[in-house]
Amino acid sequence: MGKVRVAAFSISLDGFGAGPLQDLNNPLGVRGLELHQWVFGTEVFQKMHGQSSGGALGVDNSFAAKSFENLGAWILGRNMFGPMRGPWDGDAWKGWWGDTPPYHTPVFVLTHYARDPLVMNGGTTFYFVTDGIESAMKQAKDAAAGKDVRIGGGVSTVRQYLTAGQIDEMHLALSSVLLGEGEHLFAGMNLAELGFVPEKAVAGENATHLVLRKKSR
Amino acid sequence: MGKVRVAAFSISLDGFGAGPLQDLNNPLGVRGLELHQWVFGTEVFQKMHGQSSGGALGVDNSFAAKSFENLGAWILGRNMFGPMRGPWDGDAWKGWWGDTPPYHTPVFVLTHYARDPLVMNGGTTFYFVTDGIESAMKQAKDAAAGKDVRIGGGVSTVRQYLTAGQIDEMHLALSSVLLGEGEHLFAGMNLAELGFVPEKAVAGENATHLVLRKKSR
Repeated sequence: MGKVRVAAFSISLDGFGAGPLQDLNNPLGVRGLELHQWVFGTEVFQKMHGQSSGGALGVDNSFAAKSFENLGAWILGRNMFGPMRGPWDGDAWKGWWGDTPPYHTPVFVLTHYARDPLVMNGGTTFYFVTDGIESAMKQAKDAAAGKDVRIGGGVSTVRQYLTAGQIDEMHLALSSVLLGEGEHLFAGMNLAELGFVPEKAVAGENATHLVLRKKSR
Repeated sequence: MGKVRVAAFSISLDGFGAGPLQDLNNPLGVRGLELHQWVFGTEVFQKMHGQSSGGALGVDNSFAAKSFENLGAWILGRNMFGPMRGPWDGDAWKGWWGDTPPYHTPVFVLTHYARDPLVMNGGTTFYFVTDGIESAMKQAKDAAAGKDVRIGGGVSTVRQYLTAGQIDEMHLALSSVLLGEGEHLFAGMNLAELGFVPEKAVAGENATHLVLRKKSR
């Protein structure tokens, strides 16, 4: 049976998963990109962006690689898919990732506005789900057919699935950055009560990797 | 010139510096003790508690040792000094630490209730400061005579001095524990705006050590 995972999700030392004021120029919010510096130099990331060789091996890379293993479907919040709000303006926006997004599976995008599925290169199809997070999860699990479902983000989407008790495992990459403001991943949330226990904290080259797991009841 | 430091201050993965419901049986709040597991096995801690040999060396121990270096004075919140509230009930309560507290310097305790200084063995004298955090800081700096002032805690005391812009450096020990509730060290606080930058994140044997430093302006 597949798991529902958050993986390679970057947060600052003060707990923010994105900076404030997300827009077209700051898809991760102001200073949000700094959270992800640890991944850019890894071989996994370099290969994903068309470099045939190079990129660092090591702990960070191995966590990055693991985040993509055994995935059968993704779920994304709409703000992670794009910066626009309100009704879709036709089919012009196809995500931040070009013609070949790094998902290679069905991707279920949470939105209030209906839109036809969008077939991309490399096996990614974006499905736009308008009837809520439970419906998106059901569709994602069906599509994953026993593989894992990865909640890609952003912060609000992760928080909604956490609160709903639907996440089995989280790998957070704690970056040596203080954002001071933005979207806090866990504010007001009781992870212990939600059943999570820390599994490990591993020092990478440019981030500290925290793995939290829902304990079986 | 001495610095004002927070050091070896333990927090949970979800950012709590103490558990809820502090009382005589739970001086660190419910489950608060778990935050400090990393230090108990170290040589520094073992020696401090009268063991003549034994205790782990290594990264955790070296951060614990560093937390005591070059100290000229301490500042503690009253709740860190004891569990009682309201006026002092005579001189009966002398802190949690027995006749020879681990401070060995003047210690300034923030309180609303006056009390005579309390001279302990080993060079520790507790002074009870009733006229606010600025006054306590001035007295601590005078007493430290060029050495560092360490803010011992608890959470509320650290937050007050952070907000007042008076802390130069923080070493936090991030423990692999999720508390879920309790006293959050940084909630609602903008560390970036307060001028802090991360200096390093170092993996210890039982905690991850984060060093934050006020950047010079």
